[in-house]
Amino acid sequence: MAMREFSAQELNAEFTDSVPDIANLNVTVEAQQPGGRLRMRARVGQNNLRPGGTVSGPTIMALADWAIFISILTQIGPVEMAVTTNLNINFLKRPQPNDLIAEVSLLKLGRRLAIGEVSIFSDGEDQPVAHVTGTYSLPPVSSASAVAAGN
Amino acid sequence: MAMREFSAQELNAEFTDSVPDIANLNVTVEAQQPGGRLRMRARVGQNNLRPGGTVSGPTIMALADWAIFISILTQIGPVEMAVTTNLNINFLKRPQPNDLIAEVSLLKLGRRLAIGEVSIFSDGEDQPVAHVTGTYSLPPVSSASAVAAGN
Amino acid sequence: MAMREFSAQELNAEFTDSVPDIANLNVTVEAQQPGGRLRMRARVGQNNLRPGGTVSGPTIMALADWAIFISILTQIGPVEMAVTTNLNINFLKRPQPNDLIAEVSLLKLGRRLAIGEVSIFSDGEDQPVAHVTGTYSLPPVSSASAVAAGN
Amino acid sequence: MAMREFSAQELNAEFTDSVPDIANLNVTVEAQQPGGRLRMRARVGQNNLRPGGTVSGPTIMALADWAIFISILTQIGPVEMAVTTNLNINFLKRPQPNDLIAEVSLLKLGRRLAIGEVSIFSDGEDQPVAHVTGTYSLPPVSSASAVAAGN
Repeated sequence: MAMREFSAQELNAEFTDSVPDIANLNVTVEAQQPGGRLRMRARVGQNNLRPGGTVSGPTIMALADWAIFISILTQIGPVEMAVTTNLNINFLKRPQPNDLIAEVSLLKLGRRLAIGEVSIFSDGEDQPVAHVTGTYSLPPVSSASAVAAGN
Repeated sequence: MAMREFSAQELNAEFTDSVPDIANLNVTVEAQQPGGRLRMRARVGQNNLRPGGTVSGPTIMALADWAIFISILTQIGPVEMAVTTNLNINFLKRPQPNDLIAEVSLLKLGRRLAIGEVSIFSDGEDQPVAHVTGTYSLPPVSSASAVAAGN
Repeated sequence: MAMREFSAQELNAEFTDSVPDIANLNVTVEAQQPGGRLRMRARVGQNNLRPGGTVSGPTIMALADWAIFISILTQIGPVEMAVTTNLNINFLKRPQPNDLIAEVSLLKLGRRLAIGEVSIFSDGEDQPVAHVTGTYSLPPVSSASAVAAGN
Repeated sequence: MAMREFSAQELNAEFTDSVPDIANLNVTVEAQQPGGRLRMRARVGQNNLRPGGTVSGPTIMALADWAIFISILTQIGPVEMAVTTNLNINFLKRPQPNDLIAEVSLLKLGRRLAIGEVSIFSDGEDQPVAHVTGTYSLPPVSSASAVAAGN
């Protein structure tokens, strides 16, 4: 669908600064495959921990939302107007107080909606700590092109 | 189901300090009705804003998760072991850069699971900016009693 | 948003015949209030029961999906092209082998998306057996008008 | 976790007869891998079609719910008391009027909750028509053993 794919690394860098939640998480892109498939890492710090040394749910949700957002942008370009309309998260097991790894892929990339899926892992573990699906409303094409051209 | 209800105000104060995400949000309980129905306010600051002056999605998700958690504790006491297993959020409209108000109620309070519903508003507005349902796994009763007794 | 509201009763009758799942459920509209708020009844029969005399989950999901669909059509007219994009259901308690009552309202009615909320009850009971939110993608306005005009 | 895995084929046959929704769908198990991973087929008939020749949403939801249920039973045995507590579905594209294929796997198998994930395809197609996650409450172990022993 996209004429070319955009670099997740650059998109992440471009947008992170303006979003304090995500800037604090210090998210980096570790791998990118065609079609929006990404691996991202969030550096978990004291601010993200809950009593007992586990990572907070909102931290996991923030990373998942961000991972899908950046995945979509790799396909449609650096538009600011892709907005989350639905996010569903299943918490699967207690996270360790380690970095979080997000493995994201796109289930659908339509003209008006994109839907992504993310598994979140504690760094170094095999079983995910959470699974997320998210729906994003995409800007009309003409507007998207205009913004993309402006960047 | 509960022998008595607990004060949402006190529960919120007791748990907030240990949870940085929520401590930063500065959540207060504004009203409490029987059965877990609560009205809560989050003081939105610069850290919670996105470009364009809207409140970030993770801020809204954090507030919703917290509101259901505290609502459940008003019914079962100050246990730390109620854990979110599922959260579903529909984003309905763009929030204003104002405080957020959460109106929460419980859809189910079983022995093993509780399910709550939250509508989130920009302070002073009539239409919600988001609607959330969340499922929480409750600790076995004996363990819950033990913890409650310890507080 | 709508210039006028359409009759849920007529919309339900018009569309039901072409949808076997729903025709079998024998859904009727019992009450309609402004803004898409409806009360609907499904006549539960042997085909909708599970062992132990409870109503099947798919029956409840079918009713909820239908209730939101008809609620949206009361606001935008009899378009066939409103399609479900997301449905989230929480099952709250075991239904009795009685008729089901759906109480539906709209959380959002935008130009491109509508989001509805439904509580499902066993007839005669106070506590809901299920709670559902659903998102629907709406046809572009010009197309919607054309279809509506054709009916 | 399971001492041995059960045959999805037999479990499906055992339970289907008592569930009219599913008996009508004529679901068969086509492949089974360790850990609850299954491929199932539903024979779509006139009763499952919507105007325009597409498969109805409730048909897809019924198949997904059933697929996760049977997947869980392959791990814990033929208990009747695993009940759906949450189901989230994203509809991705319009199904063809063909058989549906469900590819299911388990995201979590705990003592009290199991969570599964299903992708649904129109037979012969590469892109899924829907993606579903579902949460199931499991019976306490002693009771599960009793029932399993009774079968």
